[in-house]
Amino acid sequence: MAKDEFNTEFKLVGTRPNRPDGLDKVTGRARYGADMTMPGMLWGAVVRSPHAHARIKKIDASKALALEGVKAVVTRADFPTGLTGEDWNLQENSMAGDVALYDGHAVAAVAATSALLAQDAAALIEVEYELLPHVIDVDDAIKPDAPAIRPGSADHSVPEGFPPNVVRYIDYGHGDLDAGFAAADLVMEKTYLTEATHQGYIEPQACVGQLGADGKGEMWVCTQGHWFIRQMCSAVLGLEVAQLRVTASEIGGGFGGKTMVFMEPLSLALSKKAGGRPVKLVMNRAEVLRATGPTASASMDVKIGMTKDGKMTAGKAVFRMQGGAFPGAPVDSALDCAFANYDMPAVYHEGFDVLANRPKAAAYRAPGSPMAAFAVESLVDEMCRELGLDPVEVRLKNAAREGTKASYGPTYNKIGLVETLEAVKAHPNYAVPLGPNQGRGVASGFWFNYNGDTAVSMAIAEDGTAQVSVGTPDIGGSRASLAMMVGETLGVPYEHVRVNVVETGALGINEPTHGSRATFATGKAAVIATEQAIAEMCRRAAVEWDIDPDAVEWIDGAAQPAGPNAGKFPPMKIGEIAGKMSTTGGPIAGHYEGFPDGVGVSFGTHVVDVEVDPETGHTKILRYLVAQDAGRAIHPAYVEGQFQGGAVQGIGWALNEEYVYGEDGRLQNATFLDYRVPVASDLPKIDTVIVEVPNPGHPYGVRGVGETGIAPPLPAIANAVAAATGQRLRHLPMTPVKVLAAIQAGQDG
Amino acid sequence: MAKDEFNTEFKLVGTRPNRPDGLDKVTGRARYGADMTMPGMLWGAVVRSPHAHARIKKIDASKALALEGVKAVVTRADFPTGLTGEDWNLQENSMAGDVALYDGHAVAAVAATSALLAQDAAALIEVEYELLPHVIDVDDAIKPDAPAIRPGSADHSVPEGFPPNVVRYIDYGHGDLDAGFAAADLVMEKTYLTEATHQGYIEPQACVGQLGADGKGEMWVCTQGHWFIRQMCSAVLGLEVAQLRVTASEIGGGFGGKTMVFMEPLSLALSKKAGGRPVKLVMNRAEVLRATGPTASASMDVKIGMTKDGKMTAGKAVFRMQGGAFPGAPVDSALDCAFANYDMPAVYHEGFDVLANRPKAAAYRAPGSPMAAFAVESLVDEMCRELGLDPVEVRLKNAAREGTKASYGPTYNKIGLVETLEAVKAHPNYAVPLGPNQGRGVASGFWFNYNGDTAVSMAIAEDGTAQVSVGTPDIGGSRASLAMMVGETLGVPYEHVRVNVVETGALGINEPTHGSRATFATGKAAVIATEQAIAEMCRRAAVEWDIDPDAVEWIDGAAQPAGPNAGKFPPMKIGEIAGKMSTTGGPIAGHYEGFPDGVGVSFGTHVVDVEVDPETGHTKILRYLVAQDAGRAIHPAYVEGQFQGGAVQGIGWALNEEYVYGEDGRLQNATFLDYRVPVASDLPKIDTVIVEVPNPGHPYGVRGVGETGIAPPLPAIANAVAAATGQRLRHLPMTPVKVLAAIQAGQDG
Repeated sequence: MAKDEFNTEFKLVGTRPNRPDGLDKVTGRARYGADMTMPGMLWGAVVRSPHAHARIKKIDASKALALEGVKAVVTRADFPTGLTGEDWNLQENSMAGDVALYDGHAVAAVAATSALLAQDAAALIEVEYELLPHVIDVDDAIKPDAPAIRPGSADHSVPEGFPPNVVRYIDYGHGDLDAGFAAADLVMEKTYLTEATHQGYIEPQACVGQLGADGKGEMWVCTQGHWFIRQMCSAVLGLEVAQLRVTASEIGGGFGGKTMVFMEPLSLALSKKAGGRPVKLVMNRAEVLRATGPTASASMDVKIGMTKDGKMTAGKAVFRMQGGAFPGAPVDSALDCAFANYDMPAVYHEGFDVLANRPKAAAYRAPGSPMAAFAVESLVDEMCRELGLDPVEVRLKNAAREGTKASYGPTYNKIGLVETLEAVKAHPNYAVPLGPNQGRGVASGFWFNYNGDTAVSMAIAEDGTAQVSVGTPDIGGSRASLAMMVGETLGVPYEHVRVNVVETGALGINEPTHGSRATFATGKAAVIATEQAIAEMCRRAAVEWDIDPDAVEWIDGAAQPAGPNAGKFPPMKIGEIAGKMSTTGGPIAGHYEGFPDGVGVSFGTHVVDVEVDPETGHTKILRYLVAQDAGRAIHPAYVEGQFQGGAVQGIGWALNEEYVYGEDGRLQNATFLDYRVPVASDLPKIDTVIVEVPNPGHPYGVRGVGETGIAPPLPAIANAVAAATGQRLRHLPMTPVKVLAAIQAGQDG
Repeated sequence: MAKDEFNTEFKLVGTRPNRPDGLDKVTGRARYGADMTMPGMLWGAVVRSPHAHARIKKIDASKALALEGVKAVVTRADFPTGLTGEDWNLQENSMAGDVALYDGHAVAAVAATSALLAQDAAALIEVEYELLPHVIDVDDAIKPDAPAIRPGSADHSVPEGFPPNVVRYIDYGHGDLDAGFAAADLVMEKTYLTEATHQGYIEPQACVGQLGADGKGEMWVCTQGHWFIRQMCSAVLGLEVAQLRVTASEIGGGFGGKTMVFMEPLSLALSKKAGGRPVKLVMNRAEVLRATGPTASASMDVKIGMTKDGKMTAGKAVFRMQGGAFPGAPVDSALDCAFANYDMPAVYHEGFDVLANRPKAAAYRAPGSPMAAFAVESLVDEMCRELGLDPVEVRLKNAAREGTKASYGPTYNKIGLVETLEAVKAHPNYAVPLGPNQGRGVASGFWFNYNGDTAVSMAIAEDGTAQVSVGTPDIGGSRASLAMMVGETLGVPYEHVRVNVVETGALGINEPTHGSRATFATGKAAVIATEQAIAEMCRRAAVEWDIDPDAVEWIDGAAQPAGPNAGKFPPMKIGEIAGKMSTTGGPIAGHYEGFPDGVGVSFGTHVVDVEVDPETGHTKILRYLVAQDAGRAIHPAYVEGQFQGGAVQGIGWALNEEYVYGEDGRLQNATFLDYRVPVASDLPKIDTVIVEVPNPGHPYGVRGVGETGIAPPLPAIANAVAAATGQRLRHLPMTPVKVLAAIQAGQDG
């Protein structure tokens, strides 16, 4: 790294320029998933199971196919069998085989010359079902006598004799747990429940797929990661991976939910069957809620030991999660996050990944961390109350620091949890006096952050402006932060850098914009690629000056002779070098491929004040404070936006959002009227403090900031509600009905 | 280079697989320039001058703008002034300023919500002109008293006192010319004329441009080189180059004519004025002929000295060419090609680039070479007849060989002219007896071939299939030849390689598919990039095997331990290495940026038999043979296709094609009915012999093959017509009218 990571004399880093995609987005020119059209394009529609669990006895598409303009119908019979290359049951989830496994599971798809015709045709496809017993709730699903959903799908981690729907089992820990609990003055154990929530992205899944008989295909798709789409579609359809080119559209939110395929393989299968015509599929909101991936729901037992002065001596977490009809509930990461905030002598984790007749869970912002935080940070608060201790001081006393062995294994390097706790203590919000029915809650949260496969290219144009080709779709302003880092490194204005999210055919493999990795990993890769281009520009200047390339420095967007040659020649600006590149050796570019090391974990602490209406049980958020370690905020406005967005999603999860199933196993609230995400009028301004403990593993000190912020709101609000009402709610969401019941009963809920 | 260039044991090179874009093209799925649509797209139409030379006194667009649905009108006043960054008068040629310089010169453009509305609106734009005197013919335009078209536009090469329309002057040579002519037994000097011809690509120019107020733009365009389009549009409009992203559509022919901008900047200017809505512009055939770039027309004096046994002692070429109203006639390359076939002790070249009131010339397949070949190879034939010598033997006696100092300067390395002459001598066509009114003509031709700015990336997908990202649009099958070279180098099947022509935002600068450079330069770059990826894969195998990376070889698509470790581990196949790349270091890729050295020049010799109808003057091609040095034919069918295509275009140029102007300076034959390109029924099967003298500068021996083939047909057919009729035609095209007149008059025409 050319940059000193503790340098704070930046020209671009830390400023707040407009985002490069801003004008396109505010004028409606930006092209999202459903905006693509292609010559000869067809429209698709999907037939979905109305049953939670049913054998498919017969599919009769003859009436649909008899309609003029209907070009293809596909069922599971049209998919290749015996494939290897994916371990995620994506083919089975994309299209039911013999058995529909959840309400909304695709059973057939049709392509026709208009969207309405496709929907009419879908309605004419007759499916004969034989109902099977179903199970929805995780604590029901884990019972030994629950209906076995997919017998034989447990992996090697599951001991003989476990209940039939347990497909993965995890247990690990360190330290002497018994000794830890024995050393405690107070040991408390409670059970906490969370319900499935959806990422609630504004833009439904949408794609246009084209696949020829020659196995060559193209896809335009709204996704967080088009290389994943390419890999997964290829795996589901048995394609040669490089023969499929996938372009990411602009994206109206993903939050982890757009990192896997749902109906994308169907558009390709329909296209192939329709003679290679492109097929557009756009989900409606009900399809998004019924058939894409929400979070897992969780049932969690947590036990903690604490001395009377607040030192935590041991912790035990036993988590049961259902992630739908396939393995994949984030039990592992939930357990890893459970005690990650704390320096504890003994911890033990046990986890169960359980099948239920519900849609396959997908990632959702810090997968598993919010549930774990809800359980652990609620219990810590309960114990502070019991012992009469200040919750911030207890957290400071136990906080993980540089050198702490993390509960999940590694040893932390430089981290900023203590700094976030100090920041909330110092913030005016923390000193506001509270009135009747009001309460204040505090909680901290953690996310690992991530690096992942990263390939970035950058190149210099003839006028010295620069382009950066990246594979991570811009969700939260990464084009801006990447342009700032590249511009800073190159020493050119922000406007001279264009960041392009390119299609899969143009770069090596890239993981999605997930794991809070884009600014860290793509950013680090872009800086390294830029340094390569700078080295080449210095080399060209050296050739022209006839001096050693090592005797050339790059300062302020220009090659400058250094050392013994300093001042011997005037600086050669980037535009001058670029203008003659064709005669000095051709194109100038830089590249990075790798798995960038140096990920910096991130902690945050939230403080929330609520007022609970004792007559309705309604919880109003009075004020909300997020303090989180960003490492360094490249573009502070977008960092604040991530903090605020995480808090808002956490507020929804805490107070309102849940998947509600009927006795019949059907989702009862598959609309945004009934599945209620917070709206502006539900919220105060979310206050933010950007804590900056630079990550030594990144040239500009960046940590990821996208995910940590969704974990603390669940327990912080529960803690605040407990403070306001005197009742502890251990089952989210804390709807007015539940809160009122607890108040009226005078007992925890 | 890992490959021995004289290795001929190839698995893919030299075979004839289907082209990867074949299915798309035969099923109509391939997307050409006019096939793109975008949300909110407008349609444009261009108002063009009907006058060859006229001052624009007033443009009144008020009636057009009053139409509902008309969104923008642009004239030259909407273009920025004072720009630098292009030396080619592209802004002036894209849109007339004060003066319209040729029939068809754009004077205004309009964008509206439909194509018909745009055309209606264009018709309502009123332009008031003041006619100025014009000049069309090159020999008229070079006169001292010709109307001065753009006074002051001559460059520094033009001596004081030259006629006003001479804008560039060239003279060079080597050897003692006078001594050379004195040593000759026969000195002959003649004047030859060629008319402007058009490339005649099937697909008219088409683009969709979008440009926002923020200076960020995108373009979809039918072009041979989208980086050129990017650079030229940026130069014309004053944009920051990297802020414009240009995607090349499929292309229905270019032949050099799609290497510069014509209406592309207008679509961007209209888009910007229309609030950033995309604007589609599609030329009709008349616009293509009137307002894109045909060849220059030429008037050429050639003088050669020859001994009576056929040794050429000296040559002098004086070429006058008009390339329209701007500098740019290919006088330089024409002169360079004039004597390139021959090893001559003395040559002298003199050239005049002359302005005329005609559209700005563009490149057309081996620019300048066909005219030069017509003049020189006709004169050589005239002299052979005069001296009673065999034209092939005379060429063999004088042929350039390895070590010959070329007439244009450099010394040839390994070249194949002699081999092409031997090939035609040995071919059965050369021995077919001729009947009455039949004649046989022979001629050779030359093209430099070219390298150019080249950036290529390649990457390995998770299943071991490979993708290659290139910047040269596929015109003649380069996706196939590139996939074959990469597959050969990787040791994988052809179908495992996908070649992607990517947009400008994804790679460093690339020159167009021109100069016969794609298979040579992009191919060499792709092989080098592939070798980089192979080295990385060997390194990963070495890490796994815990041996030195230098002790790993790549054989048959697998890493294999070599040297002391040979046989110690089983080969690690590409799919295995690729399948675990995420855990062994991330993406695997390779890159090349540069100006690849090692260009190999190419020569060809053609033999044509014709029969001339003495009653109509019609010339029928009886048989046609092309023998050309390909270096090595990667995909022989596409090499043959290039040979045949060059011959057919040359036949059109020789016999039919010309721009016909009226007294008023208007083009009179701006349709494919009146501008007659050869059709299938005009042609015999074109026989081909692929001569392979491998180019040592390319890993597989490739030379370019696209251009050389258009040069020999002009003189070969003129020589055949002379043999058939006894009359020499020195003014192309040899239309029936001209041939009949020569026959009837019993004198040369």
